[in-house]
Amino acid sequence: MAKQPKTLEDLFHDSLKDVYFAEKKILTALPKLAKAAQSDELKQAFGKHRAETEGHVERLEQVFAIIEKKAQGKTCPAINGLAEEGAEIIEEYKGSPAIDAGLLAAAQAVEHYEIARYGTLVAWAEKLGLENAVSLLQETLDEEKDTDQTLTEIAESMVNDEATEIDEAA
Amino acid sequence: MAKQPKTLEDLFHDSLKDVYFAEKKILTALPKLAKAAQSDELKQAFGKHRAETEGHVERLEQVFAIIEKKAQGKTCPAINGLAEEGAEIIEEYKGSPAIDAGLLAAAQAVEHYEIARYGTLVAWAEKLGLENAVSLLQETLDEEKDTDQTLTEIAESMVNDEATEIDEAA
Repeated sequence: MAKQPKTLEDLFHDSLKDVYFAEKKILTALPKLAKAAQSDELKQAFGKHRAETEGHVERLEQVFAIIEKKAQGKTCPAINGLAEEGAEIIEEYKGSPAIDAGLLAAAQAVEHYEIARYGTLVAWAEKLGLENAVSLLQETLDEEKDTDQTLTEIAESMVNDEATEIDEAA
Repeated sequence: MAKQPKTLEDLFHDSLKDVYFAEKKILTALPKLAKAAQSDELKQAFGKHRAETEGHVERLEQVFAIIEKKAQGKTCPAINGLAEEGAEIIEEYKGSPAIDAGLLAAAQAVEHYEIARYGTLVAWAEKLGLENAVSLLQETLDEEKDTDQTLTEIAESMVNDEATEIDEAA
């Protein structure tokens, strides 16, 4: 424990590893969400976000390069918990008219986690004067916000309506 | 497996239990964050949010009453993961100039989780025609957003500055 006190650089590096782990977990989770979704619109949204997520992983690798560190993940208990909640929805709501509403909610919880993390990383990169990292992280942050917005629109326009209609018909 | 298919009412009830568990977990976590924080401003923000969180628990109990269900929690793996990340920050950054930045980031990840969950609950309560529940959940959602904003302002104004200054002096 006689180590150097940890600094904002350490915190930035630790959080980068956390998000790198999270993005890779999301890459494996999205096809499961897409498979479980009933509506084509939602399947497509998950598919599109998977392609974007591959880009997020690449950008994180560029940020690791900027701070001259090896790109590696660190177990992120939060994303593991969030992924577990998504898996529970799939298991408990399989075949239910409400599954798409549940999947949307699970996916939006993940998006908000990422929005929080990337928001923090952008702020710290600015503080640390890592201008190239700021642009890369901001690009991903913008995409996560767009995805959250898309999911909100799908939820409002379609899935909750369907779930309610089928509820009423039951 | 010959049960009735689950409906949006079930999903709303399940998510209410999830958030009820989460709010109670946050009640126990906030004093630890406040104790670990270095700056008085951050300590006070965590203390204020703990008082608000007691109100959130009470509002959830009112929503359970509206849907004529017993107020009870259901283990929420996401909040457990988020709380674990906060505990890791406290352990790894204790005595470090960057601890407040780390605590702020952990707290904002929790706020974003809650913003996602309450956003979803408000939308579902609207769909289900539970007007009184909508107002209660919206009140909490607004407070979570305000807390997130306060944490952002503290992060921008103070904590990151301090961490960087001490980094530079090291």
